[in-house]
Order: sequence, then structure tokens, then C-alpha cells
Amino acid sequence: MKKSLVALALMGAFTGAAYAQSSVTIYGTLDAGISKLTGGTTSVGKRDNNKLGFKGVEDLGSGLSALFQLEIRYEPDTGTIENTSGANSRPLFQGQSRVGLQGDFGTVRLGRGLTAFQETSTQFEPWSGMPAVAGYQTDLQVAGYTTDPMSPVGNSRNRFSNAVFYNSPVVGGIFQVNLTVQAKEANNNPAIVGKGTAAAPQFPANSAPTTTPYSLSATAINGPLGVYGAYEKNAIQSKIWSVGAFYKAMPELKLMGSYQSQDQTENVTINPKTKAWLVGANYTVGAGLVRLGYGQKDPDNVLNSPAIAKTKQVSIGYDYNLSPRTYLYIDASNKKATTTANFYSLGIHHNF
Amino acid sequence: MKKSLVALALMGAFTGAAYAQSSVTIYGTLDAGISKLTGGTTSVGKRDNNKLGFKGVEDLGSGLSALFQLEIRYEPDTGTIENTSGANSRPLFQGQSRVGLQGDFGTVRLGRGLTAFQETSTQFEPWSGMPAVAGYQTDLQVAGYTTDPMSPVGNSRNRFSNAVFYNSPVVGGIFQVNLTVQAKEANNNPAIVGKGTAAAPQFPANSAPTTTPYSLSATAINGPLGVYGAYEKNAIQSKIWSVGAFYKAMPELKLMGSYQSQDQTENVTINPKTKAWLVGANYTVGAGLVRLGYGQKDPDNVLNSPAIAKTKQVSIGYDYNLSPRTYLYIDASNKKATTTANFYSLGIHHNF
Amino acid sequence: MKKSLVALALMGAFTGAAYAQSSVTIYGTLDAGISKLTGGTTSVGKRDNNKLGFKGVEDLGSGLSALFQLEIRYEPDTGTIENTSGANSRPLFQGQSRVGLQGDFGTVRLGRGLTAFQETSTQFEPWSGMPAVAGYQTDLQVAGYTTDPMSPVGNSRNRFSNAVFYNSPVVGGIFQVNLTVQAKEANNNPAIVGKGTAAAPQFPANSAPTTTPYSLSATAINGPLGVYGAYEKNAIQSKIWSVGAFYKAMPELKLMGSYQSQDQTENVTINPKTKAWLVGANYTVGAGLVRLGYGQKDPDNVLNSPAIAKTKQVSIGYDYNLSPRTYLYIDASNKKATTTANFYSLGIHHNF
Repeated sequence: MKKSLVALALMGAFTGAAYAQSSVTIYGTLDAGISKLTGGTTSVGKRDNNKLGFKGVEDLGSGLSALFQLEIRYEPDTGTIENTSGANSRPLFQGQSRVGLQGDFGTVRLGRGLTAFQETSTQFEPWSGMPAVAGYQTDLQVAGYTTDPMSPVGNSRNRFSNAVFYNSPVVGGIFQVNLTVQAKEANNNPAIVGKGTAAAPQFPANSAPTTTPYSLSATAINGPLGVYGAYEKNAIQSKIWSVGAFYKAMPELKLMGSYQSQDQTENVTINPKTKAWLVGANYTVGAGLVRLGYGQKDPDNVLNSPAIAKTKQVSIGYDYNLSPRTYLYIDASNKKATTTANFYSLGIHHNF
Repeated sequence: MKKSLVALALMGAFTGAAYAQSSVTIYGTLDAGISKLTGGTTSVGKRDNNKLGFKGVEDLGSGLSALFQLEIRYEPDTGTIENTSGANSRPLFQGQSRVGLQGDFGTVRLGRGLTAFQETSTQFEPWSGMPAVAGYQTDLQVAGYTTDPMSPVGNSRNRFSNAVFYNSPVVGGIFQVNLTVQAKEANNNPAIVGKGTAAAPQFPANSAPTTTPYSLSATAINGPLGVYGAYEKNAIQSKIWSVGAFYKAMPELKLMGSYQSQDQTENVTINPKTKAWLVGANYTVGAGLVRLGYGQKDPDNVLNSPAIAKTKQVSIGYDYNLSPRTYLYIDASNKKATTTANFYSLGIHHNF
Repeated sequence: MKKSLVALALMGAFTGAAYAQSSVTIYGTLDAGISKLTGGTTSVGKRDNNKLGFKGVEDLGSGLSALFQLEIRYEPDTGTIENTSGANSRPLFQGQSRVGLQGDFGTVRLGRGLTAFQETSTQFEPWSGMPAVAGYQTDLQVAGYTTDPMSPVGNSRNRFSNAVFYNSPVVGGIFQVNLTVQAKEANNNPAIVGKGTAAAPQFPANSAPTTTPYSLSATAINGPLGVYGAYEKNAIQSKIWSVGAFYKAMPELKLMGSYQSQDQTENVTINPKTKAWLVGANYTVGAGLVRLGYGQKDPDNVLNSPAIAKTKQVSIGYDYNLSPRTYLYIDASNKKATTTANFYSLGIHHNF
């Protein structure tokens, strides 16, 4: 005790945390390309989410580990935090902010991240769950469903904030169950009209969920075959269920498909049900990877309500790997909904 | 000079800064838990500040060092930058952003950080200065005082921006003096009514302080005994003075207490004076640490103005250390003010 | 295939990216000082941009490399992201966010960064392109020109978002050409009145450029002599051209100067043309560096429109190097425009 408190504080601040450096891994993705959508200008955009992350594992002994992960998301073309329209920024750690423990019991984490359904389903999608325009994850693979509607405008559509995340161990090397449960906290959402009126919205601004939102998924993967099933209910009681499978017909060829069904009967008066399906393939050729997909999204009663259109999407993509961390890509896609648009994209994807 | 400027710029940008990597330490805290306040929902929250920091020391020779530190603060439950109500974000480097020199003369730094009073007093508080609901730092240990009222809404309440920070060397291994002085810069504060009216506020929006805000603290630590005294005056001329002590009665037991008195006579018409005191203990039991505290905050003339209530808080906490960097915790607290509330919290605290 | 997808995802998230850590260099600058401008208060400010960056190079073989760079900019006195007036924050990665490839063909990058003109011209300025009040880069060396007027308020004035950046190889060890081209994307700019009216602005809010903005520069550096020429046209068709040179008369002495001419005839009705020139010197004395500069900025027809004044600036600065990474500095400057102001600054500049 020969040093004063401030001296100790300074020492801790500047030298005492030497153990810290070794425990943090910095990682990320920078993906930028040139793209063209029918009717739009040639623009600089992205195929994948852009990430700058910090993570670590601490071995606590006896098979127990502590885990943390913080992931910034950003737009490389403008240098901003990830946003939806240029106006509403998402959280700094949009990717995730979670801490927890891993052991024989599985993994338990607290914070913000992808739900069990969203994390599981991305693996059964031909663009690997990337939010590419040519991909199927953000629209068709979730049948238009939004995981966290009671968030601020512009927030994520596939994550829970204020949540507990559980992943079971892989039983028999085959089976795993995942569960995400969200606390019933108000989170500064704008009013959601739902079955109410603008003056008396079903969900007023800054509402708390009336029932607990949760997400459940299960996977079984054995040799070349993998299947999953998932169910999720959000804060305004919209529900989705989904099943899917992949099959590695050859070492170079992975076939996959999924079916999903959204039920919004609790908060939508017309066309509350939406079904979607997709099939896809990944084919490896030398340093290249061909991505193929076709899918449809069908709101019910489309015939009676032409404003709510059926969606059909066909896409092809090609990755050329310059290294295990870097590839060039080209995508082409045709999407028919209320209007029809072609999309082309050419870019570079770099992991660090 | 065989390379062009841009080539040199690129080289510098991509390879020339090889020395840089070795000089930066990344550190941080991720603390998340489940908590329940009387009348509120079960929610995901935190006990400690959550940090992601970057710091370094450069040895300049002759006992001189250059120091820098940048510290992001964030909310792990939502992934956002730290904020107060979900609406007003704090600065990206809310924790601190400072650069300076350390030598025989002590430490001089410029930028933004905790004032001398705030940095010193946290060490005499049973929750180690954490902003836990069960802790005493943010309300009782400062007698309701705000260090930087002329900041934007939602900004920090215990830091100076635009400041110079001085810490003396530890004289005789015992004594240290710390001084923080803030420049009289306007900093985009909203109007503060004070003794004026809404139409003619005492401090208009974006005011500059009329006198220089400063903070002074002194510590003496010898063997098991430590004492401090501190005085601070902010930009609207509210003042606080505080004294405190700790005593390590046994190696496992640290007793502590402090007294503080805020004087707002320059800008508040009724109840301008507030006194507070607290006592606490930290007791180590094996891998565990028990935290105990009791304190009161007394605005003057409470009897004549029942809206300004006396506060009484009793708290107990327990940390279970899984490693030197990771612990689980449980807190329970009862706080009586205008209303009475119980608080319970269970979580994980991970340093990296 | 004995592990489930989520297990694999976790493994990837926590251990699989071991290659990542080695590829990221963290670097930055923390510069803070005390400054005084005639008529203003003594304040804490900066001489240089403050940076926290992440960058890396991946060797792809055959002389090809992948590059990325992300650079946060911030204000050390308040801890915020860099901003212009305290009200409008710039992008998180204001410095740059770029990814690309380098090879025999030169360097191609996509994203956001300094234009060819801006990046080249900084090297011919006596304050090394720093945005110091005593320096010439932000006002005189660009003759008042703004690179990206169709950005959100407060955004950068010398960068392109949504751009492709090309730097040629250095031909013969002497010549290099640089080109930046911006996509014609709307980017949430406020309305710009231009030659229109407030009701019918020439460039409405969120306009797309009608012609493609671009920037071109060329350098020739041979022994002690370097020259450049540059031309740039922005999204509202303002143009600038610039030429400059440096000459190392002695190893300790670098002389430099530049001339630039802005043409705003497409969007300004009075005084559309502005010319500027500057001369400067850097002189090394032991561990010190003396910076000297003089320059003028002349809008046309100043006599007929006294509100648009001629600017004359003279500055002297001194750096004292404590190490290759850290120096103390002092600046003094006199600037005559519509008003005349003296500026003094004393601070510390630390690279990490």
C-alpha cells in the first residue's frame, strides 16, 4: 500500500491490463462492389454485411469458458454505421453484443444477437445467409417476417435485444437445440397501428411486449444430410415456423431448400398469412463457387388484393477465391413482385 | 526520393506503421445480467459500465512517457453507444479520450475524462464506483451533484470535456494531489432555467461558463489506512466537497465511508443544499466477495418541500470469481425516497 | 460433419478466425492542445485530425495483394465522433473505408476516402496537410472548394463516398497518375439553392449528380524536386485545378508552393471564381521542425462585393520531437479576411 489510489488507477489504466491484449481477437469483413438495379443508377454497394468485431474466449478450467463478442456493422461506401435508408442508424454493435459461459451444459449468453431461428436458417440458404440482393435470406427465407418490430426505426429485423441465448451441446454429434428468449422491455419503438387506428394504435410508442418473445430451433446433421426446424414469436405476436434441409450429393455439390410460414393474424387485418419456399445449390469448380437459387413468397388472398403481390426470384452468383480470405464475386438476379427488376453486382469480399 | 508521394502515402498507410501495433492495448468489460426493480419488468441490464478501450504508453527516455487512452462505452443489451434514456447518445468515447505526458513531475493529460473528485471518490465506495443500482456512486456518493451540467442532454454527469488533468507524483509513497481544470468553452448545452424563467433562463442554450470549472482532490494512503478530501465547482457554480476514508481491519475486510455536501445556492432557489453519507464494507471469503453498504442523502428543508425527499439506501452484493477476469454477481438493494423500491440483479462480469 | 451448424458457427465465431488477428494493424493519432483565437475563449482543441484506424494487407501471391483500411475520426476534447459544429456528426469511418487490390497495374480500391486531388495536394503544404488553424489545407490550398457538396450536412468536405479509387504504379520511379470516380448516387444532401430559389432550389434535397464527379492528379518526383497537377469536378459541377511543387534546397530545408483556381459558374451567380496561392517552408533544426507559410485567397470582383473578402494568412509553427511518434508543437497565425484574427496553439501530437 505504498502507492496512492490514483497512482494505482493510472497503473491499472496503462500497464496493469497486460493480460487483456492476448485475449482479444479483432476480425471483420470489408465487402464493396459496383451494382445496378433496373431503373436505378450504377452505384457502389455491398453483397455481405460489413463487420469490425472484437471477441475473446477465456478458459476458466473444468471445461468452462467465458465468451464475449462485440460486432460493429458499417457501410463501406459512405463510412457510416449500418443504416437502412441513410436516415436511421442502427446500434453501433448491430452485429452483436453478447457475453456468456460455455461448458458441458452448452452455451448461455446475454445481450443482443441473431435469434435461434435466424442463426440456424442462414445455413440453408444458397448465398450463405448474406443480405445480398441476389440472396434469399432477408425476404424470402423469412417470408417477410420481422423478428424485432418493437425496436427503434431502422433497427435490425432479425435480432433480439435484451435477450438470453442458449445453445445445447451437440448430442451424439448430431442433434442440437437452440433457444432465445427476450425480456419484455419497452425499447423506444414508434407506434404500430396494427389492428388499431392512427389515433389509437394497437401498439403505442415505446410499448412493452404483452407476452414473452422467443425463438426455438433444432438441427440434426449426419454425414451429408442436415435438417432443421424452427419456430419464433415476436413482440407483436407474429409467428413464423420454418423447416429446411441440405444434402451434399457430391463433395463439390450442396443442394438445399426450405419452407416457411408467417402468421400475422394478431396484428394484420388483411392477408395475415405468408408462405415462402426456396431451393438452391452451391457448386465448387476449382477456385470458384457457383451459387444458384429459386424461390417464391405467397401472401394469402393475393387475387383479392393485388397490392400485395406474389414474389418470384431467380438468382445466379459466382465467387472466385483469390485466397481463403478474399474473393471476387458477380451476381445476377431477377425478382418479380408488384414490379419486376433485374440486378447485377460485381465486387470484392475480404475477411480480416 | 524514387517513390512518388502517393506511393509513399500508401506504403505508410499499409506497411509503414508496423511500430503502431505493438503500442496499442485493447481492453474492455462486458457485463450483462438479469434484473428486477419493484414495479418494473424483468429486464436485461448491467451492473458495471461496459467498455471497449484502446490505450498505450510510449517510453520517451529520461523517465518521461507519453500516454493515450480512448474508451468506448456501450449498452450490451441493445448494442448501442451508452445512453441515458434510449434517446440521447453519449459521446463515442464516453469513458475517456486523453493524451499526455508522465514523468517526475507527475502526469499531465488533455481531453475528456473523470474529474479529480470523481476519480478519487470511487475508491471509497463499496461497489468500487460501479454505477450499479445497488451501488452508491452515481447518486449518494456525489450528493446528487452533476459535474458537467453544461453538456448536451444525455452526456456524462461525472466528467469534464475540454479539460486539463494533473496528477502529482506520490510523495513519500503516501500523498498525492490531483487537479482538473475545464476550459470555459460553450458545448451545446440546452438552456438551464436555474434562478431565471423559461423565457429568460439563467443559463441560455450553448452558454459558456462564467468562471472556470475545476476539481481538486488529495489522498493519503499509509498501510491499511487511506483518506481523501475533494472539492469541485462546475460550470453553473454548484459546489461539492467530500471527505472519506477506508481501513483494512483485516486482509479480508475493507471498511469505508464518506461524507459529501453539495451547495447549489447560485442556481437553485429552494433546497439548494444536499448532504449525503455512506458506510460500507468489502469482505473476501474464498473466491467470493461480499459487498455491504448503507447511506443517506438529505436535501435541506425536506419537511417544507415533500417533493424533495430524503433518500435511504441499504444494499448487499456478492461476487463469485471464476477467474481473475470473470465473475458472477448477485445484488439486492432497498432504496427509500419519494417512493420505495427493491432491486435484484444476477449477472456476469467479464474483463478482456 | 460431426458438429452441428450452430456449433460450427460458434467455433468460427470464437476460434476459427485465428488468422484474423495477425492481419489487422491498429493505428491512430491523438492530438490535443490549448488554443486561443482573437475574441474567443482559451479552449482545448487540436492541430491534426484525430484517428483510430484498422488496416491490413494480405499477400495473394503473384505480386497481388488485398488491402483494407477503416479509420475512425474523433474529437479528443469531447470524446465525440468528428463533427463540424457539435451538432452534425460525420460518419463513424470519416477518415476512410476502403477495400481493394494492389498489383503491377497499380492500386484499385472501392468505398470512401480522400480524392486524388486532395490526397496529392496535402504533400505540398507546409503543415503537411493537417487541418490546423495555422495551416493552409482546408481553406487556401483548395481555394474554398468543397469536394462533396451533395453529402449530409456536416459531412466531409474533401472526400468522395460511393467511389472507385485508382493509383497507377510509379513509372520509372518518377511518374504517377491517380484517378477517383464517384457513382451518381443520391446521398441525403439537403437542398442547395445554387442559381435557383429557396422554393425551387437548383439542387433539391437528396439529389443525384447529373454528371459523374471525378478527380485526377499526376505527380513527378525526381531527386529533390517534386511537382503535381490536379483537376476535380464535384456533384454540382464546381471545378478546381491546381499545380504545385516542392524543392529540397538542402537536406534540412524543403520549400514548397501551390496555385489553385476554383470555378463555380454552374451554381453561383456572383463571384463564381476564386484563386489562391501559397508558399511555405519546412526547416529541420536538431529535434525541431520549423513550419512557415504565407498565402492568399482571392474571389473575383471583391471590390464590387465587399462581403466576399480577400484572405491573407501568415503562419509560423514549431514541432519539438520527443520521439519518432510524439512531438510537442506551438503555432502562431494571423489571418485577414472580412475580420482579422490571431491564433495561438500549444499542444502534444502522439501517433500510436
